Amino acid sequence: MVAASSDLLPHPLDPLSSAEIQSAIDLVKKAHGELFFNVVSLHEPRKVEMTKWLENPSASRPARIADVVVIVPGGKVYDGLVDLASGTITKWELLDGLQPIITMEELIAVEHVCRKDPKVIEQCELSGIAKEDMHKVYCDPWTIGYDEQHGNKVRLQQALMYYRPNVDDCQYQYPLDFCPIYDGAKKEIIFIDIPKVRRPLSKAQPINYHPAGVEKAGGYRDSLKPINITQPEGVSFNVTGREIEWQNWKFHIGFNYREGIVLNNITFNDKGNVRPLFYRLSLAEMVVPYGNPEHPHQRKHAFDLGEYGAGYMTNSLTLGCDCKGSIHYLDAEFPTRAGGIRTIKNAICIHEEDGGILFKHTDFRDESVIVTRARKLIVQQIFTAANYEYAIQWIFHQDGTIQPEIKLTGILNTYTMDPSEDTHGWGTQVYPGVNAHNHQHLFCLRIDANVDGPNNTIFMADAVASDAPVGSPENFYGNAFSAKRTKFSTVGESATDYNGATSRTWDICNTNKLHPYSGKPASYKLVSREVPRLLPKEGSLVWKRAGFARHAVHVTKYQDDQLWPAGRHVPQTSGEPSQGLPEWMSDGSESIDNTDIVLWHTFGVTHIPAPEDFPVMPVEPITLLLRPRNFFTNNPVMDVPPSFCSTPSQVAANGAGVTDATDKLSKLAFTNGNGCCANGTNGTNGTS
Amino acid sequence: MVAASSDLLPHPLDPLSSAEIQSAIDLVKKAHGELFFNVVSLHEPRKVEMTKWLENPSASRPARIADVVVIVPGGKVYDGLVDLASGTITKWELLDGLQPIITMEELIAVEHVCRKDPKVIEQCELSGIAKEDMHKVYCDPWTIGYDEQHGNKVRLQQALMYYRPNVDDCQYQYPLDFCPIYDGAKKEIIFIDIPKVRRPLSKAQPINYHPAGVEKAGGYRDSLKPINITQPEGVSFNVTGREIEWQNWKFHIGFNYREGIVLNNITFNDKGNVRPLFYRLSLAEMVVPYGNPEHPHQRKHAFDLGEYGAGYMTNSLTLGCDCKGSIHYLDAEFPTRAGGIRTIKNAICIHEEDGGILFKHTDFRDESVIVTRARKLIVQQIFTAANYEYAIQWIFHQDGTIQPEIKLTGILNTYTMDPSEDTHGWGTQVYPGVNAHNHQHLFCLRIDANVDGPNNTIFMADAVASDAPVGSPENFYGNAFSAKRTKFSTVGESATDYNGATSRTWDICNTNKLHPYSGKPASYKLVSREVPRLLPKEGSLVWKRAGFARHAVHVTKYQDDQLWPAGRHVPQTSGEPSQGLPEWMSDGSESIDNTDIVLWHTFGVTHIPAPEDFPVMPVEPITLLLRPRNFFTNNPVMDVPPSFCSTPSQVAANGAGVTDATDKLSKLAFTNGNGCCANGTNGTNGTS
Repeated sequence: MVAASSDLLPHPLDPLSSAEIQSAIDLVKKAHGELFFNVVSLHEPRKVEMTKWLENPSASRPARIADVVVIVPGGKVYDGLVDLASGTITKWELLDGLQPIITMEELIAVEHVCRKDPKVIEQCELSGIAKEDMHKVYCDPWTIGYDEQHGNKVRLQQALMYYRPNVDDCQYQYPLDFCPIYDGAKKEIIFIDIPKVRRPLSKAQPINYHPAGVEKAGGYRDSLKPINITQPEGVSFNVTGREIEWQNWKFHIGFNYREGIVLNNITFNDKGNVRPLFYRLSLAEMVVPYGNPEHPHQRKHAFDLGEYGAGYMTNSLTLGCDCKGSIHYLDAEFPTRAGGIRTIKNAICIHEEDGGILFKHTDFRDESVIVTRARKLIVQQIFTAANYEYAIQWIFHQDGTIQPEIKLTGILNTYTMDPSEDTHGWGTQVYPGVNAHNHQHLFCLRIDANVDGPNNTIFMADAVASDAPVGSPENFYGNAFSAKRTKFSTVGESATDYNGATSRTWDICNTNKLHPYSGKPASYKLVSREVPRLLPKEGSLVWKRAGFARHAVHVTKYQDDQLWPAGRHVPQTSGEPSQGLPEWMSDGSESIDNTDIVLWHTFGVTHIPAPEDFPVMPVEPITLLLRPRNFFTNNPVMDVPPSFCSTPSQVAANGAGVTDATDKLSKLAFTNGNGCCANGTNGTNGTS
Repeated sequence: MVAASSDLLPHPLDPLSSAEIQSAIDLVKKAHGELFFNVVSLHEPRKVEMTKWLENPSASRPARIADVVVIVPGGKVYDGLVDLASGTITKWELLDGLQPIITMEELIAVEHVCRKDPKVIEQCELSGIAKEDMHKVYCDPWTIGYDEQHGNKVRLQQALMYYRPNVDDCQYQYPLDFCPIYDGAKKEIIFIDIPKVRRPLSKAQPINYHPAGVEKAGGYRDSLKPINITQPEGVSFNVTGREIEWQNWKFHIGFNYREGIVLNNITFNDKGNVRPLFYRLSLAEMVVPYGNPEHPHQRKHAFDLGEYGAGYMTNSLTLGCDCKGSIHYLDAEFPTRAGGIRTIKNAICIHEEDGGILFKHTDFRDESVIVTRARKLIVQQIFTAANYEYAIQWIFHQDGTIQPEIKLTGILNTYTMDPSEDTHGWGTQVYPGVNAHNHQHLFCLRIDANVDGPNNTIFMADAVASDAPVGSPENFYGNAFSAKRTKFSTVGESATDYNGATSRTWDICNTNKLHPYSGKPASYKLVSREVPRLLPKEGSLVWKRAGFARHAVHVTKYQDDQLWPAGRHVPQTSGEPSQGLPEWMSDGSESIDNTDIVLWHTFGVTHIPAPEDFPVMPVEPITLLLRPRNFFTNNPVMDVPPSFCSTPSQVAANGAGVTDATDKLSKLAFTNGNGCCANGTNGTNGTS
């Protein structure tokens, strides 16, 4: 079932509607004239107000407030708040030396300017591109990151340059060796970084993944038979506005320009008792540092969320393409730079998948058995950050587990190299003339925990051997081991790294709720195994700008508006001082024991490219789990109907009364004329 | 297509057929009289012979030889080999102090003896069980592991005792506190371990996952709508005998009593060039040490493969139950102890699954896009090791990745506790009176590598920051990082642990085959992130017996018959000296550089139980990847037909000529009367 919100008013955490965005824009324009709108987004209600409303939705509803960031022609930047009900601008603040997020429109502008810039044309000619071929020159505009030569007073982009001999070619196979700097206010190229050693345009044959390219290389394989996934009775979830209910879960699906999907007020109905789990869950930031130390590659360390926005860059998804079965979509609405509305149709897809076996057990004595299949709910967005794509899946399991999963695909960022050149190990030649630099994708998961209530405590858990030596009375056979639990009392204590050897996890505990059997606190365990260290060194530019990535876990006391751990305005920050999380952690002395806390978890991959990743990269998944431990009285999924269940007494009674709900649509792969199973030993004849 | 082998002879790596097993048994019986047959299994061809045959199948075929292990009534154990073609016993060797694998029949026998043993009955009465209720007493018979009080001359099992008030109850909720020791030759209980502090039978209410139990607790949920998975045109793989071809892969699926599935001669057809990858791949051993140091719990450290056999314990799978879609099954055939044949129908299932997105890229300029969906092939078995189940999936991806995945489910091993008792952290009270001890599941993956030929070399790869400090000319901005590669020249150097901080991987390289672009050797990378240390301490009983688990990786030079890293006969080994891998590693001086090598990888989980795991455990998956790196010239899946592809020129031409093969069966989850999408903002009215 889908339904509109039960009343006409939006849920307080619903994104601003197009009408609300337009209303905020109109108010601001009226007050301040023509502006460029970088952000018009929901200013989320203060938690104290929101909590009151959640407890009693008939009580006073949090106000709808627009968070507005504008650039005045000429370059001045203002942060504002607009109260939509009263139509008043409640805040209007000039920013100094801060650059707001780059919009798609700002990105798109750069290429056109580059193509016409005489100095860029000159560099293209030097690279071997004819002047009349400038329409074959492309650029991926990135924020400049931070470059001390240029500072942060002027709004800048760096243009990573490529040549595409044919409009349909993969863009990243002919990189150019120079890098123009674009001034967003002037709409001009103000500088070009030119390497000392020049590298002419590669003469390699093009390699392409589009149909013409594949046909040329031998054509498509025709060996795949269809797998159909259908849901004839529809889906198992209900949607009311942006609130979804599925298999005891209930949560609100927000979306903003910055983080994309935001999951709010996640609860689990535990046998009639609706238990809060997370107040807010999102991917809050990421950084992609590249490992080539040569200037200007140090500037390649994109904060894709803070600098470009996972919402702004999100794909419009297609039915029967990005996922299969019965799909529910949610659209996204954003301002255009000029003050109109941009709608991204199908920005979020929601669907179920069969999850394989949920649990199984056979009694070896009589082969009495239970097999129960699992179901997953997936809330997904996919965003394109220039060359890369990130498919962000929030996977909900019936057993109370939440599994954020990120699938990396798209195309490597590339730089040109002479065939004879040494990469010095900072990159890999993935195709003749194409150097794909080493990089990391480090994501920051923001966990605003609410495990059985707002007051939570984080423990670090390490599986360790007993200290007692082999042969001692306490550990005679040497096999003793247990979970060592370390409580984080203060913010400072919480800055911790992963330890694979001890299978380290971090437990979000409610120490006020002890399990009746285990005596341990109700908890959600963060199980995350892909947790590389930040490889840019301590004191480096990236280390300073991406303070959140210094450790796998940091914990802070909840504060309204502390949402984005690299800071609110990320482009061109110098990291001196570090914005966001390091600021909020302050001297580390604040208590985080049994209070409203936020856990910031940085995880990801270190990617040393290989030719298999080029010219387009097969999906590389990264995943982690938030698992209930000592939270439920016992296994919470025993009431999921089994596919098959026979008990010993039913086996003894020759199968009378067994539960048989096996999937009758499943078939043997191969059958002979009599419909009988034909495996290798009794199959049909003939070679395949 | 399925077909019988192209000739009437079995593939040299096919498991022995029932006829072959029977023939070996008859020959042995004729020569040696009545015996108990513990093993009659394929003695695998010597690699040198097998390689010759693979190169030229019309050349002389390796002989079919049966590997036979018998117990003579009275207890003597013999290892034998039987040449099936000539009908001769070519080896017959008396073993001293070695106990062969325990069969299901040996396991089943113990409970019946326990129920009638007066001393066991006495202990049951002391626990509070009436004499006439002995049919409600059950035991899980385990090998004794190793107990220095009993040594290894006598074939022993320990009986972990439970009370089931009702025949259909979950067995593990009323554990008993004593442990009888069973002599397999005498068929008697010869000893009972009785704890100093007695714990009477728990009086807790039963908790059950069977239908009657669920109905009593409120009944099944009715909120799940079906998801149908159908393959109307059949499967995309071909099977000839036990050889399978799918999406450029080809391999032979073996199966034995010990390891279960064995994958032989795995090759990948790289544009017509059939390239060898792995000569043999299997899960070769596992150990499950428990962490409670109190006697006799140190004996709980099951080697499920070496002591019981993943083949012997494998489940007979059910169509539409253990997997969905179009399934191909293979049966397994084993000897019975008395010398008959036991067939396990559907011991292996083979099926395909949709694999989500294979790759995707959108050009942000014009939204030209390609989306290609992935397919997976899964070869699966599920085995029941008393309380636990292990679903072993060998997942093949189109991009050349092999992903072994193990799903743990079933029931925790439990011991009784008084409600007032302290677990001392060695376990968790998961239900009143039920103490589930901490444990590890450590699996050993045996990788007999053949990456582009038999001569391979292992490198350890660590992602590390440059040594050059921030501000130095070589690393001015501090962002330099690369993969540090450490070659293993000798067996001794190869014993290495996981390092999460450096995202450590191990690369199986063919240093004789350098990639034309990257200049790096053709390789398969072992990406494994769940690699806890062995927690039983150095010098402990488990450390001595499970030598393979001391490090995440060991590499040895290939030797025929070095298959199982805890040794050929595991029950009751003392670990003095350590059998198997430590033996084969010898002094560590052997060269493993550019030669035929085997990589032994130990991975798994440390499990600190929680009440959510009881009375039956939702699946906990563990996975790892073997990924081609610098192996293919470029992305090997570009020729998989896309679901949707539009190029910039097609977008410019308003979509003319785009490839649109999106799945037309996918549907919107919710539609209004006009068939139009109804999301929260324009949906049908009414609450859900």
